[in-house]
Amino acid sequence: MALFVQKFGGSSVADPERIRAVADRVVATRRAGNDVVVVVSAMGKTTDDLVRLAHEVSSMPADREMDMLLTAGERISIALLCMAIIEAGEPAVSFTGDQAGILTDTTHTKAKILDVRADRLRDAIAAGSVAVVAGFQGVTTGDDITTLGRGGSDTTAVALAAALDADACEIYTDVTGVFSADPRVVSDARRQDRVSYDEMLEMAATGGRVLALRSVEFARNHAVRVHVRSSFTDEPGTWVVSDEELEVEGMEQAVISGVTHDTSEAKVTIARVPDRPGVAARTFRALADEAVNVDMIVQNVSTEGHTDISFTVPHSDLARTLKVMEGHVAELGAAGLTSDAGVGRVSIVGAGMRSNPGVAATMFETLAAEGINIEMISTSTIRVSCVVKESDVERAVVALHAAFGLGEG
Amino acid sequence: MALFVQKFGGSSVADPERIRAVADRVVATRRAGNDVVVVVSAMGKTTDDLVRLAHEVSSMPADREMDMLLTAGERISIALLCMAIIEAGEPAVSFTGDQAGILTDTTHTKAKILDVRADRLRDAIAAGSVAVVAGFQGVTTGDDITTLGRGGSDTTAVALAAALDADACEIYTDVTGVFSADPRVVSDARRQDRVSYDEMLEMAATGGRVLALRSVEFARNHAVRVHVRSSFTDEPGTWVVSDEELEVEGMEQAVISGVTHDTSEAKVTIARVPDRPGVAARTFRALADEAVNVDMIVQNVSTEGHTDISFTVPHSDLARTLKVMEGHVAELGAAGLTSDAGVGRVSIVGAGMRSNPGVAATMFETLAAEGINIEMISTSTIRVSCVVKESDVERAVVALHAAFGLGEG
Repeated sequence: MALFVQKFGGSSVADPERIRAVADRVVATRRAGNDVVVVVSAMGKTTDDLVRLAHEVSSMPADREMDMLLTAGERISIALLCMAIIEAGEPAVSFTGDQAGILTDTTHTKAKILDVRADRLRDAIAAGSVAVVAGFQGVTTGDDITTLGRGGSDTTAVALAAALDADACEIYTDVTGVFSADPRVVSDARRQDRVSYDEMLEMAATGGRVLALRSVEFARNHAVRVHVRSSFTDEPGTWVVSDEELEVEGMEQAVISGVTHDTSEAKVTIARVPDRPGVAARTFRALADEAVNVDMIVQNVSTEGHTDISFTVPHSDLARTLKVMEGHVAELGAAGLTSDAGVGRVSIVGAGMRSNPGVAATMFETLAAEGINIEMISTSTIRVSCVVKESDVERAVVALHAAFGLGEG
Repeated sequence: MALFVQKFGGSSVADPERIRAVADRVVATRRAGNDVVVVVSAMGKTTDDLVRLAHEVSSMPADREMDMLLTAGERISIALLCMAIIEAGEPAVSFTGDQAGILTDTTHTKAKILDVRADRLRDAIAAGSVAVVAGFQGVTTGDDITTLGRGGSDTTAVALAAALDADACEIYTDVTGVFSADPRVVSDARRQDRVSYDEMLEMAATGGRVLALRSVEFARNHAVRVHVRSSFTDEPGTWVVSDEELEVEGMEQAVISGVTHDTSEAKVTIARVPDRPGVAARTFRALADEAVNVDMIVQNVSTEGHTDISFTVPHSDLARTLKVMEGHVAELGAAGLTSDAGVGRVSIVGAGMRSNPGVAATMFETLAAEGINIEMISTSTIRVSCVVKESDVERAVVALHAAFGLGEG
């Protein structure tokens, strides 16, 4: 008998009709002879509604109380889903994050999972029940309620799959899997059958919105096989597995798995910084102290004892960044500070890149042939990212998708 | 330093504006130098909305899951109220029924409180915080979530006041206290300054809707001083206290404290039942087995070896009652079964009745003078109830209120 963890997001349980559809899918999995643990998010816009209420009673809601408030959302969806599963003829029991044994640290609103003590879930499964668990939430050793932050329900599902040694963690979503590019931008984007954890991590970090970064890290660290698939169809989706498993299966590893893009960030450049030790450290410590979320950082070799440092930050952090940097620039002895919110990042991701030299060159040639100017470049062993003008981003994605032969057929 | 438990019902926290008003009241109590524990219900119609959702996914929602679902309601209101109190400048911490140590039996949807382990509340108070507790909910020793049924938040408040040895349990509601009759029926109904637990119990049982019966029983058994008052004004309301306290204060005990009425029940009569042992037992066991909530029971002395048994049941239980009784009547050898949904009950309640003979006679004379026919009579040591035609109920209440001199001035 196999054990599956099935995770359904807020849009999959947005109303009673969809909850009944999810119940039917769970019951079908159960009746096919499998044990099932279900993880659900709050219904549709519930979380947004609760956040709005919080801001109507408080200008700065306390984090602990925000967690108490938001966890009401999944409480509602687990209870309703259990009722629907029971109505469909199978026994089901709901569990809050606390009851499911999701133990976290005390960082309210973005807690980290420390341990999963899933004895109650094991008992429920052994008794023949479907266990329905509230995603996104946990409890501290001091019995305070916490939430796991963005993508928290994915993380709950992967953590439970690891703790229960599940055969797979199925993430049901509103797309049919992981694509070679955003299908809204590239008409012949192809669903991938398999990607590696590392590829998925790079995709999640550079604009692929299918899985939350933390849940992929957790899956990689605990070797949880993740299956990303649609909650509206029965077709298989994309498996996220280890490099080893891909090799064992004799898959011919594609050079490039996908092209991702992200237009949510702005570029900031500190011009002609004196090139001496500690400059970068002081710069980015100052930003970290203000909780600015710096992403891509590029520093070129120095000429004449000076260098330029560029980095990207979310649009929402740009004003704060410039404020922090203004005083800092003079102190560093830099020539000036410039920023550009009208940029975007295009990335190519692929594990095959490791053994295929020339991939980066092909990328740059392709962009050049389209007349697209590259403003920043950054690479990892399996990714190349270029910052370009925002208005060039979609054209760049289409051209790269074609250049690396990622289209269907 | 005094400790107050303050309970606010769903209408008092129905929207963000009212939540802020409750926060202001709590903060004022705190700044007057008192410790405060607050108990809140779910916001406005939240519970009704959740019940409707449950019935949209299931024809018969499981009790355990119903409790999981409904407890989301108070979780939302405790978090929002804490945010609002903090915004108003005092520290506050929210607690679910579980976290507050409300330990119950395992009877989902109508659990009984077994114990209150309020250590976390004591710690929060000692740390200078307002403790905000979810009403209506508890937890079993097996860590399953339960609810306390109708009037559960009042019971939570009284139980916490008992466990914390509070100076008073303030029940804030949409009326200004306990009245000598329903002010919508009797224009000169008077707010009582003080009533005894026993009087309050009889009033709650006969149509007074201000406090739930169970919470009054709990208050009496644990000698909790209850103050029923309006959440919209600052004037004092009605104190519910022991007979002893009333006597110590040298209050001249009124003969009659109030006139109550109830038109939610129907009358059922089994005519000419053979008068032999066990007849009543079998009748009411049959109804209890069907979970019919029988209220007033009257059986007269027998004539010629036969008697009539009459009782009242809620309108909603009448059809079921008649179905159960139909077969039963023949079996008992009774002559027939009649029912009347068009009745109502009028009661007079007063601890002074014990030492004042003739109260019942005055009641019957008053009704006779109004030409109102009495269909059933039932009494306790501090109450007389008469069942009359529903159309006579309001006239009876007005006449009795005047006859016992209960009007203002």
